[in-house]
Amino acid sequence: MEKLFVIKIGGNIIDDEIKLLSFIKDFAAIKANKILIHGGGKLATKVAEAMGIEQQMVDGRRITDAETLKIVTMVYAGYINKNIVAGLQAAGCNAIGLCGADANVMKAHKRAGAAIDYGFVGDIDAVNNVFIKSVLDNNNSIVFAPITHNAQGQLLNTNADTVANEIAVAMKDYYEVTLIYCFEKDGVLMNANDDTSVIPSISKESFETLKSGNIISAGMIPKLDNAFAAVNAGVKQVIIGNAEKLNTLIQYQTGTVISNEY
Amino acid sequence: MEKLFVIKIGGNIIDDEIKLLSFIKDFAAIKANKILIHGGGKLATKVAEAMGIEQQMVDGRRITDAETLKIVTMVYAGYINKNIVAGLQAAGCNAIGLCGADANVMKAHKRAGAAIDYGFVGDIDAVNNVFIKSVLDNNNSIVFAPITHNAQGQLLNTNADTVANEIAVAMKDYYEVTLIYCFEKDGVLMNANDDTSVIPSISKESFETLKSGNIISAGMIPKLDNAFAAVNAGVKQVIIGNAEKLNTLIQYQTGTVISNEY
Repeated sequence: MEKLFVIKIGGNIIDDEIKLLSFIKDFAAIKANKILIHGGGKLATKVAEAMGIEQQMVDGRRITDAETLKIVTMVYAGYINKNIVAGLQAAGCNAIGLCGADANVMKAHKRAGAAIDYGFVGDIDAVNNVFIKSVLDNNNSIVFAPITHNAQGQLLNTNADTVANEIAVAMKDYYEVTLIYCFEKDGVLMNANDDTSVIPSISKESFETLKSGNIISAGMIPKLDNAFAAVNAGVKQVIIGNAEKLNTLIQYQTGTVISNEY
Repeated sequence: MEKLFVIKIGGNIIDDEIKLLSFIKDFAAIKANKILIHGGGKLATKVAEAMGIEQQMVDGRRITDAETLKIVTMVYAGYINKNIVAGLQAAGCNAIGLCGADANVMKAHKRAGAAIDYGFVGDIDAVNNVFIKSVLDNNNSIVFAPITHNAQGQLLNTNADTVANEIAVAMKDYYEVTLIYCFEKDGVLMNANDDTSVIPSISKESFETLKSGNIISAGMIPKLDNAFAAVNAGVKQVIIGNAEKLNTLIQYQTGTVISNEY
């Protein structure tokens, strides 16, 4: 089976022009099949502020009202997505930027019945993995913006971590998939105050121990829950590590590896 | 040879939600291969105004400074492009929205040496017609935003009429191409004050007569010059007509036809 890397980057890289350019070069240099999923960064907030559109946040999460959906569609699927693609082209990587509506690649439904109404937020129902494979087979890499659609004309805002998970799982029948979550630390830390205390690998058993001992930071728990869900669903391994060290992450030399094989 | 329709719509349709929805349904209903190119509409100006970014216009054309490029990339390649694609998906048409950086589909260079510096404006050097054909062969329609790139990481703003022309000409080796310019009138008018005075067809000879007699409005001349350039370069015919009558335009029943065959 051929390898496929599904790599997610977040705001800390997107907001830093120099780090983003360096990441783009590292991504372009990957020889295997590769998919990039990007989050939003601060630009959406800046545009909303500049336009006088108030952003409602609940528990650190943005409420996507109609005006906010317009802004995230512009910023994520337009500005960020197309600039990353142009950067990849300049680095010799033939990439295509897509959102979920393109080729019906990520069909979702508007979240309903939750305690909090997050607005135009989509939960993914189906990934068009046949189309994704055909793009990869033509030696094109894909850059996904975290915008989906409901197949009835409505775009929806979807969490970029979730998009990465769903894409990785959907491609497992065709590829040996490694899902990489990039962030600003070198991996999951044993001690939040010590950046060198990276846990090299976490098994299902050690995760329970780490959780019950309150060793892992609260913010990391949902990321790890997602990671275990992905490996349980057939993704070979998930790596959590530093976006600035992508070339060592893809060689499994840095970062925290989550796998059912340990 | 299979038929291909390359259809361009402008701001008057994009800015009108009901007309746009109706146009999307008509476009989705076309059985032949089809490509849509959209312009910008007023949203870019509105966003710029809301963000307090002053728009410089020279001779009715926008100067694309760095901030304006950011806005047109967001609005054209993000908001407008993805909403049209989502609308097409809802209408049963499997579409993909692209800008020129995606799959290196439209490589351009920044215009230089002109009397007026229009800023980040691109003139197209090459169209990746092999890629476009592969997408059409997979029964996917394409929606192009008029944003190109220079293959060195720089996005560029490109006139949507020009994009339509270049795409139409680039596909002529594979398809019998009909290029349709949609606007708010039923065609090229003999009398600007009489909307029913549509000229059914214009030949190279009659164009000269119409021009020398000052019969055609000044704004229509560059569109017709483009149209003749397209047919001279191998496009079978160009039709100029009403976006609200797309289903009759594609049957050559309305609009003004420009062709070398007349």
